Amino acid sequence: MVFWSNRRIARPELPRLRPRVAPTDLAKVDFTELVPEPVPFLGQAAYIQLEFFESLARSVATAPTLSAKEGLSRAAGGALRQHHALIAELRRLGAEPVEVMAPFAPAAERFRQASAGADWYELLLGIHVTSGMLDDYFSRLAEGLPGELATRVRAILAEDEASAGVLHDELFAAIEAEAEPGLADRLALWGRSLVGDTLLIARSALRASDSRDRGADVEPVFTELIAAHTRRMDALGLTA
Amino acid sequence: MVFWSNRRIARPELPRLRPRVAPTDLAKVDFTELVPEPVPFLGQAAYIQLEFFESLARSVATAPTLSAKEGLSRAAGGALRQHHALIAELRRLGAEPVEVMAPFAPAAERFRQASAGADWYELLLGIHVTSGMLDDYFSRLAEGLPGELATRVRAILAEDEASAGVLHDELFAAIEAEAEPGLADRLALWGRSLVGDTLLIARSALRASDSRDRGADVEPVFTELIAAHTRRMDALGLTA
Repeated sequence: MVFWSNRRIARPELPRLRPRVAPTDLAKVDFTELVPEPVPFLGQAAYIQLEFFESLARSVATAPTLSAKEGLSRAAGGALRQHHALIAELRRLGAEPVEVMAPFAPAAERFRQASAGADWYELLLGIHVTSGMLDDYFSRLAEGLPGELATRVRAILAEDEASAGVLHDELFAAIEAEAEPGLADRLALWGRSLVGDTLLIARSALRASDSRDRGADVEPVFTELIAAHTRRMDALGLTA
Repeated sequence: MVFWSNRRIARPELPRLRPRVAPTDLAKVDFTELVPEPVPFLGQAAYIQLEFFESLARSVATAPTLSAKEGLSRAAGGALRQHHALIAELRRLGAEPVEVMAPFAPAAERFRQASAGADWYELLLGIHVTSGMLDDYFSRLAEGLPGELATRVRAILAEDEASAGVLHDELFAAIEAEAEPGLADRLALWGRSLVGDTLLIARSALRASDSRDRGADVEPVFTELIAAHTRRMDALGLTA
């Protein structure tokens, strides 16, 4: 295992995942063609928000300060509202949410456990990185939902801007203050290790939506997700 | 330790905590005379709701079924809304919520841990019993807050009727189905053991509100809390 710091010394030129297409190209991916099946799509998205809620609630319970607890409790409330709003959309479609979500539970729970990390900082970065990528992804995929549903679901998924701010701020403060020796290096490695599992969950949403054959079409979106991930890590002063 | 069942055999005549005054007498306690200091009162009430949220979030994470998880997540959202609504009242009074809540954190966290129980059923009963008693209590005490604040705070604290329903229903179903041998007896004992600690927290709210000398005035309210606790346990088929 190689550790390096990107704050103390000049940032070395390391091989990095970079977007292979410019942002302007990405706009050309027509998500309306991917048309996810609304019911399983909403079921998976709803369950994933429930997992984010559980992770955030855990971060509240283990927060080192009351101020952090307070901010994270708002983020937890946000994830829960998103979960319940997606459940409401399922009911509107006449689906039974618990039944629809059930098939996604085992993978989503394994994913949550795998991204929970070894301590509070890793837990926070785990939520920041995975919810950042997946909310973006599900929001892009939701463009393919029929009619008004697309608009409503995208509005629901866009709601957690505030949460992202809280997670960023807590992590940034801890990294800046070197809350513990080697924290930035440890978190940089941890952040990188989360990407693979997150992309697997993202791909499973395509399968879940019966868009198995359209995987190739969304390749630029994965590239975009990784670019956004890199920006998110950069903003924390961490090498992605 | 003596176990008994109140479902299989005739309920034995055991010494029970009973209300010492009739409900009609209770209405005569004039809470406007107790006038809690609004800021510490709201701080303690807000922190206690945060603890209920943490306990409920834990019950979501450890729920044995997705359906239970779903219902409890709504209850957790309710506690969080109550917490944030009380925080909003503190801000409205120009107070810094984190500072105001801080002195109450250690006792409230010890209380949460003490009422968390040994498994999911005890966790649920712990929340049901303690939030049932304390929400009632803070709501009664809130009658002494000045003007419109009393009305708003009582409305906030009354919001968790739905949560109580979820907790009752999950517990009732498990007790009826004898989810495990001796569950009813174990929960009956557990429920009784929670009362003392809950009343201590209730009394500390008086001290927190500088109403130290008025302890005697609220004695009928403690009696009323215990009577409501008995009804809550009875509704579950448990001897209080």
